[in-house]
Amino acid sequence: MLNTILYSLVFIFDPIKQSDMTINIQCVDKVGLVAAISGLIAQEHINIISMREHVDTDQQRFFARLELASKEDAQLLHHKLKAVLPVDAIIKINTVDEKKIVVLVTKEYHCLGDILIKNHFKTLGASVQCVIGNHQVLKEVCQKFDIPFYFISHVDKDKKVFENEIKVTLKTYKFDYLVLAKFMRILSSDFIKNFTHKIINIHHSFLPAFIGANPYRQAHERGVKLIGATAHFVTDHLDEGPIIAQNINPVNHTFSVADMMRAGKEIEKTTLSKALQLVFEDRVFVYLNKTVIFE
Amino acid sequence: MLNTILYSLVFIFDPIKQSDMTINIQCVDKVGLVAAISGLIAQEHINIISMREHVDTDQQRFFARLELASKEDAQLLHHKLKAVLPVDAIIKINTVDEKKIVVLVTKEYHCLGDILIKNHFKTLGASVQCVIGNHQVLKEVCQKFDIPFYFISHVDKDKKVFENEIKVTLKTYKFDYLVLAKFMRILSSDFIKNFTHKIINIHHSFLPAFIGANPYRQAHERGVKLIGATAHFVTDHLDEGPIIAQNINPVNHTFSVADMMRAGKEIEKTTLSKALQLVFEDRVFVYLNKTVIFE
Amino acid sequence: MLNTILYSLVFIFDPIKQSDMTINIQCVDKVGLVAAISGLIAQEHINIISMREHVDTDQQRFFARLELASKEDAQLLHHKLKAVLPVDAIIKINTVDEKKIVVLVTKEYHCLGDILIKNHFKTLGASVQCVIGNHQVLKEVCQKFDIPFYFISHVDKDKKVFENEIKVTLKTYKFDYLVLAKFMRILSSDFIKNFTHKIINIHHSFLPAFIGANPYRQAHERGVKLIGATAHFVTDHLDEGPIIAQNINPVNHTFSVADMMRAGKEIEKTTLSKALQLVFEDRVFVYLNKTVIFE
Amino acid sequence: MLNTILYSLVFIFDPIKQSDMTINIQCVDKVGLVAAISGLIAQEHINIISMREHVDTDQQRFFARLELASKEDAQLLHHKLKAVLPVDAIIKINTVDEKKIVVLVTKEYHCLGDILIKNHFKTLGASVQCVIGNHQVLKEVCQKFDIPFYFISHVDKDKKVFENEIKVTLKTYKFDYLVLAKFMRILSSDFIKNFTHKIINIHHSFLPAFIGANPYRQAHERGVKLIGATAHFVTDHLDEGPIIAQNINPVNHTFSVADMMRAGKEIEKTTLSKALQLVFEDRVFVYLNKTVIFE
Repeated sequence: MLNTILYSLVFIFDPIKQSDMTINIQCVDKVGLVAAISGLIAQEHINIISMREHVDTDQQRFFARLELASKEDAQLLHHKLKAVLPVDAIIKINTVDEKKIVVLVTKEYHCLGDILIKNHFKTLGASVQCVIGNHQVLKEVCQKFDIPFYFISHVDKDKKVFENEIKVTLKTYKFDYLVLAKFMRILSSDFIKNFTHKIINIHHSFLPAFIGANPYRQAHERGVKLIGATAHFVTDHLDEGPIIAQNINPVNHTFSVADMMRAGKEIEKTTLSKALQLVFEDRVFVYLNKTVIFE
Repeated sequence: MLNTILYSLVFIFDPIKQSDMTINIQCVDKVGLVAAISGLIAQEHINIISMREHVDTDQQRFFARLELASKEDAQLLHHKLKAVLPVDAIIKINTVDEKKIVVLVTKEYHCLGDILIKNHFKTLGASVQCVIGNHQVLKEVCQKFDIPFYFISHVDKDKKVFENEIKVTLKTYKFDYLVLAKFMRILSSDFIKNFTHKIINIHHSFLPAFIGANPYRQAHERGVKLIGATAHFVTDHLDEGPIIAQNINPVNHTFSVADMMRAGKEIEKTTLSKALQLVFEDRVFVYLNKTVIFE
Repeated sequence: MLNTILYSLVFIFDPIKQSDMTINIQCVDKVGLVAAISGLIAQEHINIISMREHVDTDQQRFFARLELASKEDAQLLHHKLKAVLPVDAIIKINTVDEKKIVVLVTKEYHCLGDILIKNHFKTLGASVQCVIGNHQVLKEVCQKFDIPFYFISHVDKDKKVFENEIKVTLKTYKFDYLVLAKFMRILSSDFIKNFTHKIINIHHSFLPAFIGANPYRQAHERGVKLIGATAHFVTDHLDEGPIIAQNINPVNHTFSVADMMRAGKEIEKTTLSKALQLVFEDRVFVYLNKTVIFE
Repeated sequence: MLNTILYSLVFIFDPIKQSDMTINIQCVDKVGLVAAISGLIAQEHINIISMREHVDTDQQRFFARLELASKEDAQLLHHKLKAVLPVDAIIKINTVDEKKIVVLVTKEYHCLGDILIKNHFKTLGASVQCVIGNHQVLKEVCQKFDIPFYFISHVDKDKKVFENEIKVTLKTYKFDYLVLAKFMRILSSDFIKNFTHKIINIHHSFLPAFIGANPYRQAHERGVKLIGATAHFVTDHLDEGPIIAQNINPVNHTFSVADMMRAGKEIEKTTLSKALQLVFEDRVFVYLNKTVIFE
């Protein structure tokens, strides 16, 4: 039980505002990149709170993330950075305080519940624009938090039609990311290609991984001692997109299939939560089929 | 993304109903206790789903937990068990499907949010009767879930008066446990003695433990690499009651005090959630100042 | 830095002697089994230090493990237990203080090193009879600890011939288990069937699992955030035998393939060590393709 | 069981050689430091494999670590860096492939065993010059690996005399670090001040931390659910020096005091091993009473 001094502090610091501006750079590696970037920032008399770089030496690829203490003219800075960086450089300057997201769900509440609570108390790092469900089960909890819920059934529908209905709804919203919070339909390549590295999925996945209809029952029959979850960007290759976060929970022989599912849900919730935080704070770079993450 | 077969299964199995009846026994150890208990159950032709025992050989203390497949006459069974067990035996037979709880809070939402969501979807293993807060901040979220919220301020009040007001409110409810979900007031011995092993608290606690006004700042200054949380029963000895669950999260030098707090909240939420599940499923025995837990 | 009182204690307690005798029982489940077993033990006036049971309700299979405080006549007790248990009951009574093992290796030292050190200080829970290697690399370290090392090359040999040479060497030793401590040859069904549930292997395995020639490179290319290891009994189905222990280590984008291997070795060492302890203390039951483990 | 392609790879990559040269810089923070450093390196046409920085904004303190692809003239580079950095800058340029260490022990073998095995197979990242023990127990295992062992008893000796004897032995060796691998004597301030941030200790430490004569017994009586270990630099303040690594293992009510000790030793071994790797690779900076670690 903390005393009053502490919890005052809690409310001063929370939600956490790390910096006024972040810059993410990805380009081919060459000598002098860090000097070029930091030289420019120094010249502009901008204070760097933190700077992180990584070089993938195999791929000759350079990554940098800067947190700046003041809000500068993003367009001007982008222009100046472009001038000192290789032509292929991907520069992202983020000045917005909060990302916007749309959440897709089916019936399971555990990931959505966590998102809605954090969204309500403004600690999600993003604001939920709406929720789309292919079942009605989660409508009520969305309404409790005044979040628009759209029921779009997949039943007796061609996948194209189903996805088109989702797209029509999405068009009425601005959003940075689509979060699949236990959305149990496989999205088509056609759909996904509109949102490259913008769709985040949470995937149950085991050690070893089980494929097919009933992974938890398979895991139970195999007597695994760990179950896990993987949060990843969605690409054409089903459940094979760049990994953002992974975590596990120990299980044992006393766990029924149902117990494993319950443990699985907890770890799914935690892992998605971690991944969303990393993405919303612009800490994740994607290249090839993997990620660089400056935690 | 699981297919439809799986998530049908999810809803069949969830919430998890393990057994119709559990029996918890604690007494002095002697030869033949397991035989006596299991012999009686066999004689009654009751099917044992699981039986767990533990003997603390230092203390000569015996613990057993049985899950039974059918609902028997609890009073009769209690009577019969008493006849074959040592006179000091503490026998608890639990036939109720769900515990009842009251939650005490201050301003922080993270533990309460998790409890409310699980309560709403009936996977908490207990039903929240009401929430009492010494601040108004969390009133709104309780109302969203139609949970009565009582604002009882501690300001300008003698502790006795403050606790009396809480007691008056508690009297209007039946409950099995009081959950302190980041309740930031220290309860008096007088209050606690009415609820022996019935009050569950979540405590930030570090490796090493920091005492005093501002533990997270102390932890930050010391450069710890792990932060943790402890869920425990509340006793007279402040933050020293029997431990139910503990967990940690790794941190590093890039964590500000605020980041440590955020990580601390996540681990507090998870640890309290785990402890509540164990208690609500009658898996926790208390003796001396510690617990035996049949997970 | 502990004081002198503590480390006196360390040497009193270590190596750990848990009990004088353990009994492991596995049979079809029926009402009254626990009563029958514990009744018999009580009748014999033997003190039970601990008793653990588990019922796999799906399979109607019963498992029990007892630790007894005194050494009884094992044969007589086996006989008496057989009389009160179902005909299919598998009863194992262990009175020996220490198991005997043979270790098979290739070139990597990390698992063998841990085994040799613990063996030398008599805390392995088993004594190493000899080491067989299909390379000479680890001969020297075995000699340092006066452990016989047999170099049996697989080069330019039919697998049958190779395995026959191993069998000839094994025949000169008594042993309870064969430990594959990074033995990089796949054993034939013919070989394995002589040692059912007697061969323990440590397997690198990832989340998700990677199959084929170069799992660490694959894991690196996929950008996994966890790497793991699985210790299991070896069966006909390659790397698919009953799992004894699993564990993971977090990794990130800064890990090269070589770094992943190094982290992988640490987790392999720890996981095999854990599995061996469980097996040597008779805590592991095998049935179907999985394990029940009374930790 | 990996195939032959993999283990060929293992031996190419292991031991791991990350870079030819590392530079560690610590100084007061000011605008343009990264630009100054990386500008200089670029000007010298040296390829940076990786560069990491951190700013402690509270303390206005800047930290950087660079890995360079080629071995430059360290003295010249140091001179040039000094010219572009604040006057208080601490610059360390490391070109040596391997650190040298002396290990101090008492009776427990678990940490020393791990160090000796890794030292033997040249994967420790340092070479053990000698071992000093205040008991004779560990002499034999050192001799097996041809490591000089000095028995220096503390019995019936003034601490000053005891430490003097250690110092005399140390003088005959060159070493970078002193590793206290379960050395159970408290070193005096007088001794320690000769080796600031050069002595690394492994400390059992619990959640919550227990102080005094018998921490494991205290932990057992308190029924903790986690036990841990902390590796730290030794300073005047007993067990309070800058933390390098911390880790925990879960325990439960079935653990005896002896079981807790065994689990404690495993986690001590792992935690010290991790800390040594970080220190030997020059990844650890010390300031105030804490560390910045570029993992």
